Amino acid sequence: MQSNTACSEEERYIVRKLEITDKNKGFMELLQQLTVCNSVSDNEFQKRFEELKLYGDDHVICVIEDATSSKIVATGSVFIERKFIRSCGKVGHIEDVVVDSSARGMQLGKKVVDFLADHARLTGCYKVILDCSADNKAFYEKCGFKEKEIQMVKYFI
Amino acid sequence: MQSNTACSEEERYIVRKLEITDKNKGFMELLQQLTVCNSVSDNEFQKRFEELKLYGDDHVICVIEDATSSKIVATGSVFIERKFIRSCGKVGHIEDVVVDSSARGMQLGKKVVDFLADHARLTGCYKVILDCSADNKAFYEKCGFKEKEIQMVKYFI
Repeated sequence: MQSNTACSEEERYIVRKLEITDKNKGFMELLQQLTVCNSVSDNEFQKRFEELKLYGDDHVICVIEDATSSKIVATGSVFIERKFIRSCGKVGHIEDVVVDSSARGMQLGKKVVDFLADHARLTGCYKVILDCSADNKAFYEKCGFKEKEIQMVKYFI
Repeated sequence: MQSNTACSEEERYIVRKLEITDKNKGFMELLQQLTVCNSVSDNEFQKRFEELKLYGDDHVICVIEDATSSKIVATGSVFIERKFIRSCGKVGHIEDVVVDSSARGMQLGKKVVDFLADHARLTGCYKVILDCSADNKAFYEKCGFKEKEIQMVKYFI
């Protein structure tokens, strides 16, 4: 294994799409830093992974793997909504962005958001949106986003 | 044709899923009251309709038809996002809710939102979310929603 100083940041942090083997690289533990995220069985993970795969480019999960530890240290997802408005336009929805607490301050969050926004742009979306806390507003402004509306929620459980 | 007074509100306003023939019942003209919505050809409409149909219960558009005029007077959509968090949970996203300007004040908007939220609940979502302007906050509160986060947007065109 290379030491941390032996490779550049670009070599160390690999930005790519989620792979099914990422469950064994701390993907679920990373999501636990975001919100309530109980562990799921290998079968449950595989089932959800396959369901999402059916969406093709309409649902993409980005991860960043730390090549020195083989751990997933950042992630985020985007799904593409097809509309009738805007001449049958498309909108990207970014969700579940999180960076491992030990890997913050290295712009990995911005790398994830840029990857997801680029995917939305390249698949023909006229905009990409997301919801965040007021605390994270400044971060998303650095990623080129602007505040627009308010998010409303209704919980069932 | 029945006169407006000859049938109850429930008979007059039919709540159902979008059908392909709704293009000829003013569906696109209704969306024009919401946002930029250029007219689309019958072929474009059919293509988008068929694409959305492939999602099955994961993408539903609700419409309300006025039986006295055979016009679509209210609509809204919901799509179901499959996640890894919350034990591989699901979240409903409500979009593009609009009521015809001539049919406001009859709770048709609430009927649409209730239909979409019920769909999300029945397909196993743990919550349903939407973005709206501050002006529409009180309406969604009447529908059982609460303000949570802020929406950020990045436009490509």
